[in-house]
Amino acid sequence: MNPEIPRITIADVGRHAGQTVEIDGWLYNLRRGGKICFPQVRDGTGVLQCVAVKSNLPEETFEKLKDLTQESSLIVRGKVRAEARAPGGYELDVESAEIVQRVAEADPYPITPKEHGVDFLMDHRHLWIRSRRQHAALKVRHHVIKGLRDYFDSHGFVLVDTPIFTPAACEGTTTLFEVDYSETEKVYLAQSGQLYSEATAASFGKVYCFGPTFRAEKSKTRRHLTEFWMVEPEMAYADLEEVKRVGEEMVLFVIGRVLENCLEDLKALERDVAKLEAIKAPFHRMSYTDAVKKLQSKGSEIQWGGDFGNTDETLLTDDLDRPVMVDRYPGTVKAFYFQPAPENPDLALGVDFIAPEGYGEIIGGGQRIHDLDLLLKRLDEHHLPREAFDWYIDLRKYGSVPHAGFGMGVERFTAWMCGLEHIRETIAFPRMLYRTRP
Amino acid sequence: MNPEIPRITIADVGRHAGQTVEIDGWLYNLRRGGKICFPQVRDGTGVLQCVAVKSNLPEETFEKLKDLTQESSLIVRGKVRAEARAPGGYELDVESAEIVQRVAEADPYPITPKEHGVDFLMDHRHLWIRSRRQHAALKVRHHVIKGLRDYFDSHGFVLVDTPIFTPAACEGTTTLFEVDYSETEKVYLAQSGQLYSEATAASFGKVYCFGPTFRAEKSKTRRHLTEFWMVEPEMAYADLEEVKRVGEEMVLFVIGRVLENCLEDLKALERDVAKLEAIKAPFHRMSYTDAVKKLQSKGSEIQWGGDFGNTDETLLTDDLDRPVMVDRYPGTVKAFYFQPAPENPDLALGVDFIAPEGYGEIIGGGQRIHDLDLLLKRLDEHHLPREAFDWYIDLRKYGSVPHAGFGMGVERFTAWMCGLEHIRETIAFPRMLYRTRP
Repeated sequence: MNPEIPRITIADVGRHAGQTVEIDGWLYNLRRGGKICFPQVRDGTGVLQCVAVKSNLPEETFEKLKDLTQESSLIVRGKVRAEARAPGGYELDVESAEIVQRVAEADPYPITPKEHGVDFLMDHRHLWIRSRRQHAALKVRHHVIKGLRDYFDSHGFVLVDTPIFTPAACEGTTTLFEVDYSETEKVYLAQSGQLYSEATAASFGKVYCFGPTFRAEKSKTRRHLTEFWMVEPEMAYADLEEVKRVGEEMVLFVIGRVLENCLEDLKALERDVAKLEAIKAPFHRMSYTDAVKKLQSKGSEIQWGGDFGNTDETLLTDDLDRPVMVDRYPGTVKAFYFQPAPENPDLALGVDFIAPEGYGEIIGGGQRIHDLDLLLKRLDEHHLPREAFDWYIDLRKYGSVPHAGFGMGVERFTAWMCGLEHIRETIAFPRMLYRTRP
Repeated sequence: MNPEIPRITIADVGRHAGQTVEIDGWLYNLRRGGKICFPQVRDGTGVLQCVAVKSNLPEETFEKLKDLTQESSLIVRGKVRAEARAPGGYELDVESAEIVQRVAEADPYPITPKEHGVDFLMDHRHLWIRSRRQHAALKVRHHVIKGLRDYFDSHGFVLVDTPIFTPAACEGTTTLFEVDYSETEKVYLAQSGQLYSEATAASFGKVYCFGPTFRAEKSKTRRHLTEFWMVEPEMAYADLEEVKRVGEEMVLFVIGRVLENCLEDLKALERDVAKLEAIKAPFHRMSYTDAVKKLQSKGSEIQWGGDFGNTDETLLTDDLDRPVMVDRYPGTVKAFYFQPAPENPDLALGVDFIAPEGYGEIIGGGQRIHDLDLLLKRLDEHHLPREAFDWYIDLRKYGSVPHAGFGMGVERFTAWMCGLEHIRETIAFPRMLYRTRP
């Protein structure tokens, strides 16, 4: 109504103390007395307590405000006042208000402060994301992704997006999603960009891809989604040790960003921040063989040659305050493309980073085979048709170099940062085998 | 061989003049004389001319270098010397060299300096990306994406990824890809994140999603891919004018980044940089109705009510040095969710940004319907089932606000920056209906 009143965001309110400003938002909560009411307004950047005094406002405005329904949209104008007792340190003394859309009493906002079941909340995910904890988790996700990209962009990596539509599988085929691509062709949704990144690393030296990946996970676990985002760096002229160095540096960089930008969000999530502050270099290092011994000594029934389950991963780290990098797995539990260890060709030069607090594997990577003959042998051993991998084989014919890389899933890492039990809260619209809506 | 010699990248060579360094790369080109040869080495960050003098090297090393095959991988060590005549201003006087993998004479690198057909090059895309022009285009793409993300991250937008697996279609269904999701369900690959971003904007105020989108484009045009990346900002409490303001600011921000970081790449692409430097605010503004009049006056057969084809878009901008924002299209050519113009409900509050030089529509966006009854009416008119849009309808019940946003395709924008005729060169592994390999 008054164009001279600046529209600001709640995040910026501290820079406008003493000024009359406009906030465009939604009613988050409301306390009321007879001649005063306290609408809490959220605008996506924060929540601000407003103070509406009956005697200072047109009667109609006060009446509308005091009976306003949760999540109604409104524009408030008023003076910003420092108030030590307010959550953010400021309050707004309302001078005028405009209700943009009043949520009907007969059809109220479905998510109330009372407890709701998970299915109900997931059915209302499009609204649930407005809730404080969900909002906080997605803000952390934003900073995790920005941290990852900034890390790679500032360390000489080139972003090269790899394709989603792929004719061949990188790993096993039981979890592939099939697409009716054309009348004559079926394709699959990528589970990893790695094979393609090996090609782009030979063009750019250091690359990363960062996009959604797809896995038809039948298991309903708290660690799996059918659609999740993964960052995958790949480096030419690099070995297993370089994967450990870069992975560790990257994890620390991102944790630094989260601690720098997300303290309020972590507080809303009741995250024990000290646990994140304790993550420092150097991470623990352990061979697969030693990890098996440690697990056995702690009562696990794992035998050498077996892969770790969730329980093993948790057991392995329950006495650790930082991630452990487990390397040199038996070649039999790893994919065809792993370079064998020089001291024992039955071991693969792969490494998994296992996060503490039961968050499990956050990084998987290693050194790839660069020798043509060995690659051909492995393809045959894994019954993978050479024709499907012709271009991948070419990389070993034309300027092959030792190279290595890794993948990290955004959701699991974000869950760790947030201290969330289930990764479904780390993505706006999670997809599971029995959940494709909203 | 000598751990004290620092491994550097060619991009950094200027900081090491007079020093002995190591470069790990590939043989890009080779000129030779009897007692001297000039291997040009590329490492992904640049190309460096090396000088190998027979009398300064072990005979075996010189012999290996002088007959080295294109794209063989090698490690060279030597002293960096400023050399005004060299392309990058520096040369390397080779002191030692190690061939990592020699490309066999019998099976030489397929892409030679001679001309190759497009199909041949596309079949060898995994190698073609090493060529100077392809490398340059993908570097520009990297900076376009980084520019876009940095713009939104620094202007209060929160990245909220929207789902790829979607039960319902945002636009027409003829170009949807269908996925066998589970035994009982089919889903579709997202063509846009917009509808979901409307939900997240109500949580965060200003959001963007940025991911791959999918369209089963049957037409074999130089402007279309089946898989392409799109950035889509969405803003609560925003209108059509705000879309124009943000879109213009964003385009200028990204062009600034490209000019700042990619001059060498644009040179390799023979791009007329003056054309990009000429892009300044304000962009041209024109109503759809005036655009139709202009086109008719230039000989187009378009009638009021029709959508612009590629030819019209080119004709509309052939006398312009910067983009034109065309707004207020007939509602009939736009999707169901457009807010009607207040002065004439037959017009949609949509805007397209048409780039000069024939690059066509780079941005499409507008203001969305925020009124519940109008949205329901439009869904019915478009024969879209309300059940499928129940959550989208909810957004109009619970705190609806005027909101607006737009989408921009990365590949088309990158093609414009690079001056490329076909967008297939702006993505590492382009997917078209008849091209899913490599």
